[in-house]
Amino acid sequence: MASNNNLAPYICIILSILICITPNNIFCHAAKTSGYTRSTNASADMPAEAFPAPPGFNAPEQVHITQGDCGGRGVIISWVTPYKNDYASIVRYWKACDPKHVFKARSRVYTYSYYNYTSGFIHHATIHKLEHDTKYIYELGHGDSIRQFSFTTPPKPGPNVPYTFGIMGDLGQTYASNSTLGHYMANKKGQAVLFVGDLSYADNWPLHDQRKWDTWGRFTENSAAYQAWIWTAGNHELDVAPEINEYVPFKAYKHRYHVPYKSSGSTSPLWYSIKRGPAHIIVLSSYSAFTKYTAQYNWLEAELKKVNRHETPWLIVMMHAPLYNSDNYHYMEGESMRVIFEPWFVQHKVDLVLAGHVHAYERSVSPRLNYTIVCSISCAKLLSYRQTERISNIQYNITNGQCTPIKDQNAPVYLTVGDGGNIEGLANNFIEPQPSYSAYREASFGHAVLEIKNQTHAFYTWHRNQDHEAVAADSTWFYNRFWFPKDESSL
Amino acid sequence: MASNNNLAPYICIILSILICITPNNIFCHAAKTSGYTRSTNASADMPAEAFPAPPGFNAPEQVHITQGDCGGRGVIISWVTPYKNDYASIVRYWKACDPKHVFKARSRVYTYSYYNYTSGFIHHATIHKLEHDTKYIYELGHGDSIRQFSFTTPPKPGPNVPYTFGIMGDLGQTYASNSTLGHYMANKKGQAVLFVGDLSYADNWPLHDQRKWDTWGRFTENSAAYQAWIWTAGNHELDVAPEINEYVPFKAYKHRYHVPYKSSGSTSPLWYSIKRGPAHIIVLSSYSAFTKYTAQYNWLEAELKKVNRHETPWLIVMMHAPLYNSDNYHYMEGESMRVIFEPWFVQHKVDLVLAGHVHAYERSVSPRLNYTIVCSISCAKLLSYRQTERISNIQYNITNGQCTPIKDQNAPVYLTVGDGGNIEGLANNFIEPQPSYSAYREASFGHAVLEIKNQTHAFYTWHRNQDHEAVAADSTWFYNRFWFPKDESSL
Repeated sequence: MASNNNLAPYICIILSILICITPNNIFCHAAKTSGYTRSTNASADMPAEAFPAPPGFNAPEQVHITQGDCGGRGVIISWVTPYKNDYASIVRYWKACDPKHVFKARSRVYTYSYYNYTSGFIHHATIHKLEHDTKYIYELGHGDSIRQFSFTTPPKPGPNVPYTFGIMGDLGQTYASNSTLGHYMANKKGQAVLFVGDLSYADNWPLHDQRKWDTWGRFTENSAAYQAWIWTAGNHELDVAPEINEYVPFKAYKHRYHVPYKSSGSTSPLWYSIKRGPAHIIVLSSYSAFTKYTAQYNWLEAELKKVNRHETPWLIVMMHAPLYNSDNYHYMEGESMRVIFEPWFVQHKVDLVLAGHVHAYERSVSPRLNYTIVCSISCAKLLSYRQTERISNIQYNITNGQCTPIKDQNAPVYLTVGDGGNIEGLANNFIEPQPSYSAYREASFGHAVLEIKNQTHAFYTWHRNQDHEAVAADSTWFYNRFWFPKDESSL
Repeated sequence: MASNNNLAPYICIILSILICITPNNIFCHAAKTSGYTRSTNASADMPAEAFPAPPGFNAPEQVHITQGDCGGRGVIISWVTPYKNDYASIVRYWKACDPKHVFKARSRVYTYSYYNYTSGFIHHATIHKLEHDTKYIYELGHGDSIRQFSFTTPPKPGPNVPYTFGIMGDLGQTYASNSTLGHYMANKKGQAVLFVGDLSYADNWPLHDQRKWDTWGRFTENSAAYQAWIWTAGNHELDVAPEINEYVPFKAYKHRYHVPYKSSGSTSPLWYSIKRGPAHIIVLSSYSAFTKYTAQYNWLEAELKKVNRHETPWLIVMMHAPLYNSDNYHYMEGESMRVIFEPWFVQHKVDLVLAGHVHAYERSVSPRLNYTIVCSISCAKLLSYRQTERISNIQYNITNGQCTPIKDQNAPVYLTVGDGGNIEGLANNFIEPQPSYSAYREASFGHAVLEIKNQTHAFYTWHRNQDHEAVAADSTWFYNRFWFPKDESSL
């Protein structure tokens, strides 16, 4: 544990338990710049030996799954084999409760070259017409290389279907990354991962060492082979290197991580949507064209109009570069997208905007502390407590001067969860004073969990790696903007 | 002539001549919202019969040239033939003063298909190592289809090399377009055209009728075969039509209009630079990715550092969507690019930012009128005269409220010349009151001319189609930001 830890949060938690009884489980540490910052020394990448290939001839590896259609009855199963043959392309699957009825699907196989690297055979098999809310077993490989995994399909989209998402970003493959993934997996609540971009960080290595994509695939298999990871492309997926004649953006990412973009009418895997349980999830690309007239702009404009809040009450948007960020690292890098899309997010009452990119954690909305009077003497002072509200900044017309974020109950909550633990280290240089759009921020590695309870309420927690998984370093309730557009600070 | 003309400009011009003696040729009409607006009825496209193919078997058509290298000793000659054979690919060229020494170059040949259309054979021949400031004759075709054209190479880049550019945008192929091009060609000053995007408007026709690209090529040949047109891609070059399975952006544009992007280290023809005479010209793409980490961002960041103002004192940036526009049409569509690139434009003292897109004319800076006292009684009142200065709007940090354009002598002049005359008609719905960043605006079709005199001074005029070419509806001097960073309003 770092020696420069501030005891304030612990004192606060104790004081909260002692004196703060609130109806909504809201604790003192819900709104602040946390004093709980870690050493910013970057964690080292784990060595290649930490990720051995599975045993057996032509054993399938780097197994991962994602949703394979719009509504959750499809799954894309992806894996890599050293060689290509008929056996290698087959996935067998069956309902866990009915092992006698085995089905088969065949993958499409891809390879790519990057400078002096040639990939293995990358398989993607899309399976359709699965049953909702059902556990499936699937099996890859042949002979002594057979490997078996399982997943559970999401419930049919509907207004009161509880579902829990993990949220991770900027993961990399360091010892800190390992801690983050381990913490997430130790929490048994997460049913699927919303991944906000920056996967392997291969591009940080000489010649963009593509073997790092292979080790990352092995590293994340323990989770990604068993539950859907919903992918977003980050800047480290661009992977362009003109100095070695590699000009095609997203080459490795697009070959390795297929998504069901066509089912939502998208023309690019970099932006798409899915419905999963109670949530309509829209994935955007911070590093593709998105101005008016472009494909991404046209698609999003049409997509937002299609959202049926009666079917999927929760509307979640994911991108890599945050629209609101109060860290000096990557400050205002999302501004170009914000000035175009924020008005739409407010108009369509988006519930949550998830981003990564900044290697820290930040949340934009903080509920009211019902114990202000009691608390103000003690922990409020320790924590520089400030209640923050939903804000928007969409009135600007160049000359009217209306460019300050203002209270707006139609606005989303902004969450930055870019603290997966990659090789670049933490971003602990926050803007002071803490802006009005920032409720909680902390430069620690971790992950978040979003528990959608019903069509009105979701409970959200953020977990720093230094704590035991059961500890929520940050937690709050979010109220659905369409069905329960109450001010979180008023309830 | 439209019947709703306002006589104010004429009265003003007369009054100016009578009473306004200024050292800088600045007339009253230099700073205003002009009353001289045209009917906004869109002009109709000229019929295909207006653009017959040239006579002879396999005659080369749609001939156009652009600069073929970084410094002006190269030219790309492009043409289309119905058939492909050895003759069709050859261009013969010689110095006008030395017709006995004939050289040959061979084209690279391309075709493309778009829905039910297949293009002719599109030829691009790049010729290098020409002599500067020299007239060349070139000849295409064979037998009875031989066609002869000429061009003059630009002078060697240098600090005191006079050079005159025409500026056009959003041209289309209507009767109004014909008037604009005719007016430009009637003005013999222009040595090359800076074209700010939106060429044929083929995408406005059913199935994006690609034959409109052919007729546009024939229409513009009279100018573009004889002087370099420097191309910028506009939104009408995107030409994407998912409903007919056409997903590749810029397909026709990229096939038909080659540019020398590799010579400036760019990896895409949509952004590149050239040096031409006294000017370093940077072309950007409003409809490609340009956020941090993307190829266009990385290229521009490096490119601006390379500009040598001792060699090319004038730094000009072109894009399609204007960063400053006070027309309700396309209002703030350039905002996404402005928030990223404007700080660089100010830092690097860009002289001019040229754009189109808005079907009107607008200029951001207005010099001081030295005759204010005399004039205020008469034309100043008629014209709602207001002096405007160079402005920037780059201080914003989300919370500081500093988002109003302020005086900044390092800022560029912004010119919108989107009034080429295309089928969509004029944009005559201006924001009132006229913002501080707008000096002159008028919804009339026309073109502009930039006469760079030396390393400190350039004389600029805008010409509306209804006037005789010799009449400058708007005119002013621009002072070079690097070598003569004076306030235009102080001299």
